[in-house]
Amino acid sequence: MWSDNQLTRKLKIQYPIIQAGMAGSTTPQLVAAVSESGGLGSIGAGYYTAQQLLEDITQVRQLTKKPFAVNIFVPSQQSTTNNQIEHMNAWLKPYRRALKLEEPVININERQTFERAIDIIIDQQIKVCSFTFGIPNTDTIKRLKNAGITVIGTATSVDEAIANERAGIDIIVAQGSEAGGHRGSFLKLGPKEHEAMIGTMSLVPQIVDAVTVPVIAAGGIMDGRGVLASLVLGASGVQMGTAFLTSSDSKASPLLRESIINSKETDTVVTKTFSGKYARGINNQFIEDMQQYPDIIPEYPIQNQLTNLIRKEAAKRGNKELTHMWSGQSPRLATTLNASALMSKIVNQIDTLLSGV
Amino acid sequence: MWSDNQLTRKLKIQYPIIQAGMAGSTTPQLVAAVSESGGLGSIGAGYYTAQQLLEDITQVRQLTKKPFAVNIFVPSQQSTTNNQIEHMNAWLKPYRRALKLEEPVININERQTFERAIDIIIDQQIKVCSFTFGIPNTDTIKRLKNAGITVIGTATSVDEAIANERAGIDIIVAQGSEAGGHRGSFLKLGPKEHEAMIGTMSLVPQIVDAVTVPVIAAGGIMDGRGVLASLVLGASGVQMGTAFLTSSDSKASPLLRESIINSKETDTVVTKTFSGKYARGINNQFIEDMQQYPDIIPEYPIQNQLTNLIRKEAAKRGNKELTHMWSGQSPRLATTLNASALMSKIVNQIDTLLSGV
Repeated sequence: MWSDNQLTRKLKIQYPIIQAGMAGSTTPQLVAAVSESGGLGSIGAGYYTAQQLLEDITQVRQLTKKPFAVNIFVPSQQSTTNNQIEHMNAWLKPYRRALKLEEPVININERQTFERAIDIIIDQQIKVCSFTFGIPNTDTIKRLKNAGITVIGTATSVDEAIANERAGIDIIVAQGSEAGGHRGSFLKLGPKEHEAMIGTMSLVPQIVDAVTVPVIAAGGIMDGRGVLASLVLGASGVQMGTAFLTSSDSKASPLLRESIINSKETDTVVTKTFSGKYARGINNQFIEDMQQYPDIIPEYPIQNQLTNLIRKEAAKRGNKELTHMWSGQSPRLATTLNASALMSKIVNQIDTLLSGV
Repeated sequence: MWSDNQLTRKLKIQYPIIQAGMAGSTTPQLVAAVSESGGLGSIGAGYYTAQQLLEDITQVRQLTKKPFAVNIFVPSQQSTTNNQIEHMNAWLKPYRRALKLEEPVININERQTFERAIDIIIDQQIKVCSFTFGIPNTDTIKRLKNAGITVIGTATSVDEAIANERAGIDIIVAQGSEAGGHRGSFLKLGPKEHEAMIGTMSLVPQIVDAVTVPVIAAGGIMDGRGVLASLVLGASGVQMGTAFLTSSDSKASPLLRESIINSKETDTVVTKTFSGKYARGINNQFIEDMQQYPDIIPEYPIQNQLTNLIRKEAAKRGNKELTHMWSGQSPRLATTLNASALMSKIVNQIDTLLSGV
């Protein structure tokens, strides 16, 4: 049975399919629908306050008794200067003027938000906690594991996977270059600026060979073919973002949903433009304009906060040229099914594929 | 049976595994060993004169009676100016001086070489002809097909795959971003300079859904896991380059072989530096230096000819900083097995994987 493996047993789920956190686009309905369908839903708490996280947990629990995950961002050092912020604010002025927006007040309390989220996850006895943008410190990992919580990390290269395993992480998501949204990279590795942009077909078996913990494939996986191919490559499961983003259960705007459905696989780029961290999304004017930006883009989370209102207001007005439209490289495989129907379709597709062997 | 499908029946081979042409690194021994092992070997005739092509065909036929392919490059328009060539020659002067080399005489007769190769392929009744860098004109495709020759094209995007099918191409190689060596891209598609750099996991199912002809997956495939995963994604077979490049049957220098075996997956970059066309190889000083180059790099095949002697001489001297070292993104999976042993290993691995289903 393809779905009975070390991952499903460890997470106590029926199918080795995880819905990616997708901070900003996940709803309690989506999380619960994926878990109810036998997968593992994830609350995308990356940008949440403690209050928002608690509300989402409560809502998910009203909808399902099955396990689900909370995904949070690991805070990182950043060294953006006030000068760089001023330059960016000057650059963003025309957009703000066009959208009638004020300059935002930067408010960085990543570390505090992170610590509060960990407390809540332990306090609420969440079953699974997944991390993006790095590895939390040893104490945090110990606290979570002592509380019986399974800890999932993200790696975009073999070295990052090994670092996760050494830190005591239980399960590693291998994020291939096809993946939409933020790159989980946290080590300076390759010779290129984009860091580790390794395709899923290459990344998964190389990580599987290098670690002993279960590996979850991510990047470009949209249907039963992608799920089964990932298992064949040695992964114990998959994580899917874009596939659930266009589902009717997500918080994605109709604009984003339609943009993904109507995109070609060649329409996405990897850009630091919106948040200060590299992320894959559909190319647009905001990204193109920023190619002329003469200074260094402020780091995450500063750039994220500087562009936040512009993106929100543009999305509200149906302007897709000034907002982020995260998508992986398989938009042609996107559907508008709800999450439950998508899960059923994937399971049926795998059964059909296996019956043909 | 995994190996009995439309591709193996069409090509009259036992296993749906094709050795990539790898112009400059393929030997008649490698081609024959792959075909004798039940796959399809390919003579990499991209840089060959008519004489060299005929010699290779004769030698392969002395070693095997099984079918094999000839891979050739489709000539493209190019618009490099004399000024650009002069600038590049000035840039390359220090390298030539260090290696005691003269400035080469540029000699472009791509079209003529291409036409002669087609004549030879028809005349010699080669079973399969595969193309890189574009689609030949209708007359050429008709001549080949009328002669009973199966014609394989290369696509790095769905649009390129559709263009291949419309032109009457029989089988399409879907080349994912993980692939080593030259990108087969020929249409201006994406918003990025690198054109269509779509990961294999994303590219294969999207192309399979868009065309009716058999699709061959390429990019990052090194072992039985990659072959079977590609079939699950909907491909009818795979094409492998790097996996055969480090085999003892290839013409790869010990330098290149060792460099690949000792590389990490993050060590490669995609660069126009060596040939004027984008290709994936292990990063080195020559590539780094060229990032400072202030003018436009001459197009293929001019840049290829301008750097040719430098690369050859550097390789001869064991200097890996000044020569091209093509490799895909899975160097950690490379072996030094000979081609026949590698084929057996892959077949056994697939049998094991399938027995576990």
